[in-house]
Amino acid sequence: MTVIEEMGAKAKAASRILANAGEKKNDALRAIAQALLDNSDKIIAANKTDLEKGKENGLSASLLDRLMLDRKRIEGIAQGVLEVAALPDPVGTVISGSVRPNGLKISKVRVPMGVIGIIYESRPNVTVDAAVLCLKSGNAVILRGGKEAINSNMCLAEIMRGAVEQTGLDRNSVQLIEDTSRQSSTELMGLTKYLDVLIPRGGKGLIRAVVDNAKVPVIETGAGNCHVYVDEYADLDMAADIIFNAKTSRPSVCNAIETILVHKAVAEKALPLIKARLDEKNVELRGCERTRAILGDCVVPADESDWETEYLDYILAVKVVDSFDQAVEHIAKYSSGHSECIITGNYKNARLFTEKVDAAAVYVNSSTRFTDGGMFGLGAEIGISTQKLHARGPMGLNELTSMKFIIEGDGQVRV
Amino acid sequence: MTVIEEMGAKAKAASRILANAGEKKNDALRAIAQALLDNSDKIIAANKTDLEKGKENGLSASLLDRLMLDRKRIEGIAQGVLEVAALPDPVGTVISGSVRPNGLKISKVRVPMGVIGIIYESRPNVTVDAAVLCLKSGNAVILRGGKEAINSNMCLAEIMRGAVEQTGLDRNSVQLIEDTSRQSSTELMGLTKYLDVLIPRGGKGLIRAVVDNAKVPVIETGAGNCHVYVDEYADLDMAADIIFNAKTSRPSVCNAIETILVHKAVAEKALPLIKARLDEKNVELRGCERTRAILGDCVVPADESDWETEYLDYILAVKVVDSFDQAVEHIAKYSSGHSECIITGNYKNARLFTEKVDAAAVYVNSSTRFTDGGMFGLGAEIGISTQKLHARGPMGLNELTSMKFIIEGDGQVRV
Repeated sequence: MTVIEEMGAKAKAASRILANAGEKKNDALRAIAQALLDNSDKIIAANKTDLEKGKENGLSASLLDRLMLDRKRIEGIAQGVLEVAALPDPVGTVISGSVRPNGLKISKVRVPMGVIGIIYESRPNVTVDAAVLCLKSGNAVILRGGKEAINSNMCLAEIMRGAVEQTGLDRNSVQLIEDTSRQSSTELMGLTKYLDVLIPRGGKGLIRAVVDNAKVPVIETGAGNCHVYVDEYADLDMAADIIFNAKTSRPSVCNAIETILVHKAVAEKALPLIKARLDEKNVELRGCERTRAILGDCVVPADESDWETEYLDYILAVKVVDSFDQAVEHIAKYSSGHSECIITGNYKNARLFTEKVDAAAVYVNSSTRFTDGGMFGLGAEIGISTQKLHARGPMGLNELTSMKFIIEGDGQVRV
Repeated sequence: MTVIEEMGAKAKAASRILANAGEKKNDALRAIAQALLDNSDKIIAANKTDLEKGKENGLSASLLDRLMLDRKRIEGIAQGVLEVAALPDPVGTVISGSVRPNGLKISKVRVPMGVIGIIYESRPNVTVDAAVLCLKSGNAVILRGGKEAINSNMCLAEIMRGAVEQTGLDRNSVQLIEDTSRQSSTELMGLTKYLDVLIPRGGKGLIRAVVDNAKVPVIETGAGNCHVYVDEYADLDMAADIIFNAKTSRPSVCNAIETILVHKAVAEKALPLIKARLDEKNVELRGCERTRAILGDCVVPADESDWETEYLDYILAVKVVDSFDQAVEHIAKYSSGHSECIITGNYKNARLFTEKVDAAAVYVNSSTRFTDGGMFGLGAEIGISTQKLHARGPMGLNELTSMKFIIEGDGQVRV
């Protein structure tokens, strides 16, 4: 057995205890929150090692900021853990049930997945967030974080393992892979004997690598090439407000928009209004010819690659379209299936847009920035699925569970 | 573009029409049923070519029987298509919904997956069954059947494509890969740009190959190493009846049992009763030492491989266990997570068994042979999932769908 296979076997054993651990899971979560606070100094010291190495290796200021843990951030993480503890337990919920003509009682009951693997990049708070969501939903977790945060992650994982053990659960409910070589993540992706699902959290490259190489079931997360379509029947002030919010409130996240499509009938009025709002944040516009004819040379000429790109920056592609259908076609061609929006006052177009556009979240007259577990009322979020199998859109605790059928009889046989 | 990529692109285009095709899907299904009947002679002639080749290549009598289509079987297939047409349409069902404090209305609505790939082995009826379940749930399908049935499959696919077109839908809603080389299935497994899910139907080797090689999301189906545990509080006549049914009513299917575990306190009474029933069908028993001590040398000595094997035959492994816990441990170790059963009159043990055993279907006092879409009241079945992601146990029409969030607002932005 390799080290990672051993971890898999230990996680499987731990998951069997967690599967029916009930309120003990919340005890463990509260113990984790307390232990994080009690061990802040230790965490900050470990984090300092990562930060120093990061500086030596020339990490950018923004990456160093994502990596950094101080007392305030640790308190925030601990508070988040307590909030997860306060959520209802998904395990045991009866999803549906019936009595068959032969008297068999069949119920479909929510159960944990078993063992969940999480592969993620630099932010050490993911170590805690992901672990507690898995624990709360009754799953054992194997964490594989990025090498930049390895000292912080090892410290956080050890603290969580201690807290879990202290409440009488198996400390191997949470495990961290300390080897941050490519080899270790490849091995995790092939751990079909023990892993029930693997969730990658991070940039496009990471997610692509996991989807291409994993033999275990994967939930693809993240990529968001999102659009707002300004229909000919749009309230143009509303359009400008929503576009401003969807582009600039946090450009680096997946639910921010990357392209707007504007119906030709309103383009001359709408585009200057939209540009005026976006100028407040110095958003660079990259437009089609018709956009440039209206807004002038301040708009960079757009090419094919602009329709495909998730900028994650203060850049927005702009295209004038001839019709509702052309907008829907553009979205069908370039959307990553994350979040898509129409601004319209027309009932039929609103209805058609929600029917025809194939994405995790389809909006009418509201900002795509709402695609988020918290905003949707799920309580917490492990990520946003952009695949269609199992989970689509924001994933809360329910999405970390599976189900089983329980069939109760009194001697029935199949004739 | 390769041939298979082109098929993917065509399927994607067809799936967009199917997504909102409503009642037209049922028109297509009824047209398919009629076309199958109208073209029986053609189908039988194509099937004859396959049967002749099969004989030349030395296929076994049972394989030849699975391959064979006659008028009666075609009528049965057509009848099955009409039954699927009569089922409720899963698409558009609102799964849940809420109004958020800011006035956003969020609903989670069932939508088709998009494009489904099915890889299967010799039985040509799967060509029709799988295609109509996909169509009914609004999905385009790419079929990759086994080479033994290729002439039958091509004929069936062409008939279905014509019927689909005749009702005004895209004929590429159904496509069959005519190249039956390994290369074509490998390419299908990597078609991430177009395929939303791939479902393998067949033997262990096929399913293993798909799970190991696919880059697209897969639903693993099939393997069933199922157990009946006869508890110390079991009604022994009921135990014998259920074991007889679960082993012998159709030994070749995945919900048949392969091993029984008998509590030591009742083994001396139970084993002769059970054996007497199984002797009616000449079931070979392979037992542990204690089983042989009770039943004698007519029981073949079991070794480790017997606990692991899905015989799919008139063979049953038998083990005497010391306790409830030992039975649960044995199942945890050897079960494929398909169907598991306890026979008991004890409330606590029934409850504990359903909690502790991790399988798609957990039974109390009833035959594992009920794990089946029809028996569970799902109306139809595309297969039985033994993974935990997305679907577990019998998969009906709902399991061939995904969902999307529809968010309706009147100008909301995220603050």
